[in-house]
Amino acid sequence: MSERVVNLGFARVDVDREARQGTPEVVYGPGKTAEEIAAIASALLARNTGPVLATRVEEAVAGPVLAAVPGGSHDPVARLLVWRPAATGSFAVTVVTAGTSDGPVAAEAAAVARALGLAVTVVRDVGVAGIHRLLAETGRLRAADAVIVVAGMEGALASAVGGLVAAPVIAVPTSVGYGAALEGVTALLAMLSSCAAGLTVVNIDSGFGAAMAAHRLAHA
Amino acid sequence: MSERVVNLGFARVDVDREARQGTPEVVYGPGKTAEEIAAIASALLARNTGPVLATRVEEAVAGPVLAAVPGGSHDPVARLLVWRPAATGSFAVTVVTAGTSDGPVAAEAAAVARALGLAVTVVRDVGVAGIHRLLAETGRLRAADAVIVVAGMEGALASAVGGLVAAPVIAVPTSVGYGAALEGVTALLAMLSSCAAGLTVVNIDSGFGAAMAAHRLAHA
Amino acid sequence: MSERVVNLGFARVDVDREARQGTPEVVYGPGKTAEEIAAIASALLARNTGPVLATRVEEAVAGPVLAAVPGGSHDPVARLLVWRPAATGSFAVTVVTAGTSDGPVAAEAAAVARALGLAVTVVRDVGVAGIHRLLAETGRLRAADAVIVVAGMEGALASAVGGLVAAPVIAVPTSVGYGAALEGVTALLAMLSSCAAGLTVVNIDSGFGAAMAAHRLAHA
Amino acid sequence: MSERVVNLGFARVDVDREARQGTPEVVYGPGKTAEEIAAIASALLARNTGPVLATRVEEAVAGPVLAAVPGGSHDPVARLLVWRPAATGSFAVTVVTAGTSDGPVAAEAAAVARALGLAVTVVRDVGVAGIHRLLAETGRLRAADAVIVVAGMEGALASAVGGLVAAPVIAVPTSVGYGAALEGVTALLAMLSSCAAGLTVVNIDSGFGAAMAAHRLAHA
Amino acid sequence: MSERVVNLGFARVDVDREARQGTPEVVYGPGKTAEEIAAIASALLARNTGPVLATRVEEAVAGPVLAAVPGGSHDPVARLLVWRPAATGSFAVTVVTAGTSDGPVAAEAAAVARALGLAVTVVRDVGVAGIHRLLAETGRLRAADAVIVVAGMEGALASAVGGLVAAPVIAVPTSVGYGAALEGVTALLAMLSSCAAGLTVVNIDSGFGAAMAAHRLAHA
Amino acid sequence: MSERVVNLGFARVDVDREARQGTPEVVYGPGKTAEEIAAIASALLARNTGPVLATRVEEAVAGPVLAAVPGGSHDPVARLLVWRPAATGSFAVTVVTAGTSDGPVAAEAAAVARALGLAVTVVRDVGVAGIHRLLAETGRLRAADAVIVVAGMEGALASAVGGLVAAPVIAVPTSVGYGAALEGVTALLAMLSSCAAGLTVVNIDSGFGAAMAAHRLAHA
Amino acid sequence: MSERVVNLGFARVDVDREARQGTPEVVYGPGKTAEEIAAIASALLARNTGPVLATRVEEAVAGPVLAAVPGGSHDPVARLLVWRPAATGSFAVTVVTAGTSDGPVAAEAAAVARALGLAVTVVRDVGVAGIHRLLAETGRLRAADAVIVVAGMEGALASAVGGLVAAPVIAVPTSVGYGAALEGVTALLAMLSSCAAGLTVVNIDSGFGAAMAAHRLAHA
Amino acid sequence: MSERVVNLGFARVDVDREARQGTPEVVYGPGKTAEEIAAIASALLARNTGPVLATRVEEAVAGPVLAAVPGGSHDPVARLLVWRPAATGSFAVTVVTAGTSDGPVAAEAAAVARALGLAVTVVRDVGVAGIHRLLAETGRLRAADAVIVVAGMEGALASAVGGLVAAPVIAVPTSVGYGAALEGVTALLAMLSSCAAGLTVVNIDSGFGAAMAAHRLAHA
Ligand SMILES: Nc1ncnc2c1ncn2[C@@H]1O[C@H](COP(=O)(O)O)[C@@H](O)[C@H]1O
Ligand SMILES: Nc1ncnc2c1ncn2[C@@H]1O[C@H](COP(=O)(O)O)[C@@H](O)[C@H]1O
Ligand SMILES: Nc1ncnc2c1ncn2[C@@H]1O[C@H](COP(=O)(O)O)[C@@H](O)[C@H]1O
Ligand SMILES: Nc1ncnc2c1ncn2[C@@H]1O[C@H](COP(=O)(O)O)[C@@H](O)[C@H]1O
Ligand SMILES: [Mg+2]
Ligand SMILES: [Mg+2]
Ligand SMILES: [Mg+2]
Ligand SMILES: [Mg+2]
Ligand SMILES: [Mg+2]
Ligand SMILES: [Mg+2]
Ligand SMILES: [Mg+2]
Ligand SMILES: [Mg+2]
Repeated sequence: MSERVVNLGFARVDVDREARQGTPEVVYGPGKTAEEIAAIASALLARNTGPVLATRVEEAVAGPVLAAVPGGSHDPVARLLVWRPAATGSFAVTVVTAGTSDGPVAAEAAAVARALGLAVTVVRDVGVAGIHRLLAETGRLRAADAVIVVAGMEGALASAVGGLVAAPVIAVPTSVGYGAALEGVTALLAMLSSCAAGLTVVNIDSGFGAAMAAHRLAHA
Repeated sequence: MSERVVNLGFARVDVDREARQGTPEVVYGPGKTAEEIAAIASALLARNTGPVLATRVEEAVAGPVLAAVPGGSHDPVARLLVWRPAATGSFAVTVVTAGTSDGPVAAEAAAVARALGLAVTVVRDVGVAGIHRLLAETGRLRAADAVIVVAGMEGALASAVGGLVAAPVIAVPTSVGYGAALEGVTALLAMLSSCAAGLTVVNIDSGFGAAMAAHRLAHA
Repeated sequence: MSERVVNLGFARVDVDREARQGTPEVVYGPGKTAEEIAAIASALLARNTGPVLATRVEEAVAGPVLAAVPGGSHDPVARLLVWRPAATGSFAVTVVTAGTSDGPVAAEAAAVARALGLAVTVVRDVGVAGIHRLLAETGRLRAADAVIVVAGMEGALASAVGGLVAAPVIAVPTSVGYGAALEGVTALLAMLSSCAAGLTVVNIDSGFGAAMAAHRLAHA
Repeated sequence: MSERVVNLGFARVDVDREARQGTPEVVYGPGKTAEEIAAIASALLARNTGPVLATRVEEAVAGPVLAAVPGGSHDPVARLLVWRPAATGSFAVTVVTAGTSDGPVAAEAAAVARALGLAVTVVRDVGVAGIHRLLAETGRLRAADAVIVVAGMEGALASAVGGLVAAPVIAVPTSVGYGAALEGVTALLAMLSSCAAGLTVVNIDSGFGAAMAAHRLAHA
Repeated sequence: MSERVVNLGFARVDVDREARQGTPEVVYGPGKTAEEIAAIASALLARNTGPVLATRVEEAVAGPVLAAVPGGSHDPVARLLVWRPAATGSFAVTVVTAGTSDGPVAAEAAAVARALGLAVTVVRDVGVAGIHRLLAETGRLRAADAVIVVAGMEGALASAVGGLVAAPVIAVPTSVGYGAALEGVTALLAMLSSCAAGLTVVNIDSGFGAAMAAHRLAHA
Repeated sequence: MSERVVNLGFARVDVDREARQGTPEVVYGPGKTAEEIAAIASALLARNTGPVLATRVEEAVAGPVLAAVPGGSHDPVARLLVWRPAATGSFAVTVVTAGTSDGPVAAEAAAVARALGLAVTVVRDVGVAGIHRLLAETGRLRAADAVIVVAGMEGALASAVGGLVAAPVIAVPTSVGYGAALEGVTALLAMLSSCAAGLTVVNIDSGFGAAMAAHRLAHA
Repeated sequence: MSERVVNLGFARVDVDREARQGTPEVVYGPGKTAEEIAAIASALLARNTGPVLATRVEEAVAGPVLAAVPGGSHDPVARLLVWRPAATGSFAVTVVTAGTSDGPVAAEAAAVARALGLAVTVVRDVGVAGIHRLLAETGRLRAADAVIVVAGMEGALASAVGGLVAAPVIAVPTSVGYGAALEGVTALLAMLSSCAAGLTVVNIDSGFGAAMAAHRLAHA
Repeated sequence: MSERVVNLGFARVDVDREARQGTPEVVYGPGKTAEEIAAIASALLARNTGPVLATRVEEAVAGPVLAAVPGGSHDPVARLLVWRPAATGSFAVTVVTAGTSDGPVAAEAAAVARALGLAVTVVRDVGVAGIHRLLAETGRLRAADAVIVVAGMEGALASAVGGLVAAPVIAVPTSVGYGAALEGVTALLAMLSSCAAGLTVVNIDSGFGAAMAAHRLAHA
């Protein structure tokens, strides 16, 4: 088994994942030092051939990592580090947001999806309080192979989109809102209870999770 | 105090409420015997002049009550007993539901509102999964002086209606749904977190509460 | 559709809302830069004729916004930016608070309502622990066309007011309190479960929501 | 230890409790057969001299128990079995309820308190939606050595009473209500968060707990 | 609108959904009478050409519906009514369960998916407590175009499958288990928090939702 | 009303409370400026004769308050301001803590109780993990007229004390602990569910509430 | 792998578990027919040599199972089916309960442990409200190799036992209690937050889980 | 009792615990000053002979403590102070983590266990998303006398390990993750609901609790 895992002591890098799942393991940034991220990224770059990503990496950590492992780039809004991004393919993903405040989560979804080779369009700020904004985009939504809906507060946009398109819809609840929005739990529960059939849901604020799910679809 | 309260021992009937609030105290049926409901209704009929109502009364209890206190009627879907309903006035309320299963809660809202003299229209089954059904009713919704939105599951209909009309919107979450719908809690939280500004919300399954709120509006 | 939405890229301004709902879209401040707020406010001022508001804007952000879009003013307690406030009309709203700590939420309710042209009175610190303070204000409460009740901890003031007046009552739970007050969730649940019939409720700390609901009433 | 515990195998009766706490152990009925309740009651009657009680005992179980252990009586509303009730003393407890549906919990509180020798008055149905009903009873409330407030839904009565009297107030939340009342949890949280200082709270529907707390007071 | 909706009064059938989303509206059984289900099914059969389904229909209701609308069949384990099932296509879905008790939810997923024309394989009882059972099925899992994982208790099977296959994984939490399993909420939260990237999740016990999501994929 | 309330604009001071309840209104510090606390304290000192207290006041605020309203003192651990403390009477309260970390809550309970004239003893760090520490203090516990039990984590000390003494027991759950202690909610629920009969409970971390409850007892 | 799993279609019996873990897979009864339980038990009896158990099996199901698979016995209180129980070994487990109502959970723990060959003693009804009952049993508790503590309500017994013995303590919260006991969740949280170090906890009402944990210990 | 407790005023040190439970009381750092920790440690060193530990002590506090009480050492990752560590015995504990971010909790478990004389091995980063990493370590896991599993997010690793080994498994949920991971509550609930029989669970992030439980086992 030695060739399927690289044991760095503090981490056991799953270098077999690219063979099993089509894209290398993605590094989860929180709780890791710049040195640790750099070491894992180096192992993945050496042992895999696809794109290498690290998520939720703030600018202060990204700098030293990029200095240690050249050739990568950092997107500060998406908080994403990418080396060796994939060439853009034909699978079209539209990322839709309910409001301006959902922007960073949408940015993570879009950046991860692009790094994995998906063709991404972003449609912003079309929440149901002004439903004509959404209906005006029906064409662009129906043109997509998959739609990622990013919404906080009551998350109603997911249901509205779910009823408009035939393609897979991946709903991402966000922690935008206050009080009864319960830091994203309300949007999460609402999306899971949607009257629009066949929606699927990922974790709160997980633009990453939605992009990875889209990547699975793209190769289904 | 004697003239403002009738003390029946097991209940202290607030016969002053009609003077203070424009309509007599409404009897809450659960946990009361037919005899108790009859006694309270009799006191209210004797000491007040407006409509007398008892809510959440099942058929088996309603029969004996109506036998003891003649002149009333029972609506089994709304589970409502009414004596001396008010004449229909000019204040127009539209009750909208997301799905067929929200019917009984809407029925309670409509029946209470009618008994209090409001002019009620009901628009059923226009949930956001087929948003064109709602948009087709925009005219009827905009004609109302107030709109009561009844929805379970994710409750997204309230946000959609809230963005379409200028009138007051009273949202009633229902316990329709399963799993993550949490017996109405999800719809409740979602309605409270709505991105459509100026919605107000009442308790889960409380068609009664919504109708009473509409009655307050009608006299604002 | 181009004339009903202004697409700023990061935001899709719903300039049709004034036509649909009587007042322009209100900007939600959190998560937006001063530049973004300024751009949206400018679009709304240009394309609408009514009052333009931005909520939850702290002083540090308000300064640059007002410099970029002259003619507005900032209320630091209410955290509200207003341009072109409406002339005060005849619809009378009384804002009542349970305690001194509920002040900022009441300030937001009052400031938004005033900017929208409602005639606002504020009655402070009449919580039920000293019920005579509330009863002494019965006259002022009954004179209102609508009452906004702002209360944290157990939120009992909403029920007491609900039983005293015939007008619409909009309850705003606040996050004042500790422990079992659960950052406003307890007051929220209590207000929704009130034994006073026909209360309606908005989100925790949402003085904004209550004022918008009052604005809908004023035009019902 | 033999003289302080009676080991019945299925139960270890704490016959020392009367010496430690002034009244014998009270039997908790649920989950016990009539034979088991009878055996424990017999042990307590034999080894103690004070009142012997079993709570939450339905009529079908009470019959056989009373047949096996003569001299007791059963109150079907309070669901209480009592043998050897104490003579009524001078400590005055007033039990106040918000609504008629809180009756059974109040009945348990009153019956247990009476069996323990307290002088009990019951004031029913004085909820805050008609606050004049409560104020009219101020005299009776202030005459009590302790007040037990029994209320469901939002439980606001506890705060109102807490502000009117100087005596100890024991609040009992009930499971009366639906939806956001969360089977008594809302009233419980509200009472714990009360703005009236110095209230204390017992478990949901625990008329028993309130009466026992009053008994501790009576001997303080 | 007349041609896109059939208004039956109690229901507004969205006969346009087949055109928008590739398959007709599916009837949600709970809270509807046999007559209502029959009327909606008839409208869908008349106005659409694809498969017509009604979910969560118990045997006692299914009988009269099938008598009134001939040509259908009922699966009592899946609680599903189907008329005009689609011919089986080439899109391969594997439904995997953690334990025997997850059977009915898996049956609903499989029956709905088959009625919509997907090629379904079911692999039962391969929970992680005996991980070799799962690994032995790796081949069948990797052969699928999409995998539906049905698991209650702690729902760990979803993470294990998510790490083995590259295809889309749709996780269905079930209400199997007791205590801390919280009627499916624990499995739901666990699946949403999975360390296996790109899983998506549907509502508790919603075999229907998973099958509909697979249907969207099949046409992506 | 003028003689029973002092209206300071930002606050309506309930100067009648001393007459109604034996001790003046207590100022709740959070959310008030030093100027506001000073103004309320001055009104209470002028219009009442008993002790004047302000709770949860940090040192930085206390300094200016004491400068403006001389004659008071500040306890930084209890975060309490006191003017005109009552002479110590004969009612004996023992405050017991489970661990050292419960100290500040116990300090608030003790300081408020002393300011109100109760005779206070504190017994620290006798949690049930070393039950002999508690049993060794049985004498001191039984000598008290009332016992205040302060405990976080699982709050088991309240049940142990409740079974040892006959006097009233007031349980104060604290937010000490982590993880499943849920910031005091676990101790709160545990104390409410105690198998020791007749315990009463106040809000999480509310040493103030417990002392006020003891004060009510002292005058029962 | 065929020899490590028996595929019955509806179930995949893990006949390798005995080799891996020292005792055969245990059948979880709920949701299985008598035929299914019988088939799994037969497979386990044929392919393993140790004790075969099925949990949570009511009497009505147990009868047909025992008829089909002779040689077993059913314990109706523990709801347990056992074939081929192990001979009793030297590892001593004491099962302690807080109250009589915890009996059935304790019975399941004791019966499973005995079937697996542990030497079991049961000490009933020694809850902390009468702590002398527990202290009197200190000897028997300290003689055990492991202690299983079964308690509902506030679960304080686990902490008390945890502080008395040096051996491993496995705490089982039960669903005994009402209101704030939250069907066992309160006892669960309390046990996890215990101030007694080194307690471990299993699921609510899981006498089975505790016995299996003890079995692991016995072979550690 | 004087010889079994050392009363320091602010703390009552349980110096009898070593006799009762085999290891001295462990100091809980949070909320204590360096002086207080030093005083307690000194008392324990003087009156006991075994290892003395203080948990959750940050570097800034540890320095002064070690200066005042020489001979100890501080592990900054584990946040642990140790004096007089036990000699390493033969009981072998393997600590397994799901991901790199679980490191600090695992470090606490390992450091406490080593200080108490257990022989500790750590296996890092073998989460179920790459199950081959875990299976490759089967040998090391099966060699252990007890296994501590440290995992956040969905906590599935505990179930996988629970099914692989026969030894006692102590699961430690961590607060690693976001959104639906609910700061460790999801992993906690999942571990309690595990389909792998006989797992036991300790509090969230409680590496300490797991190590103490292992210590109990080692002496069983
Ligand atoms: N932003 C993210 N949210 C959730 N999971 C992630 C994220 N980034 C990476 N992961 C997953 O976390 C795992 C790596 O965790 P670690 O070993 O701690 O780096 C990988 O299997 C990824 O699939
Ligand atoms: N303080 C507030 N609380 C809740 N909703 C708000 C608030 N301020 C503005 N809104 C709503 O938020 C929407 C604008 O969100 P955004 O597009 O992010 O600016 C508008 O439709 C407003 O109705
Ligand atoms: N620490 C405290 N916790 C809870 N309630 C308090 C506290 N201190 C004062 N109070 C109560 O809060 C009320 C005063 O609130 P306020 O009007 O905001 O000063 C008084 O009625 C007191 O009974
Ligand atoms: N009462 C019980 N509670 C929790 N898990 C159990 C119980 N009885 C058996 N199990 C576990 O459930 C699994 C069998 O589930 P199943 O395949 O549905 O029979 C086995 O791995 C057992 O470890
Ligand atoms: Mg917007
Ligand atoms: Mg429909
Ligand atoms: Mg005040
Ligand atoms: Mg009444
Ligand atoms: Mg199985
Ligand atoms: Mg200590
Ligand atoms: Mg007992
Ligand atoms: Mg990793």
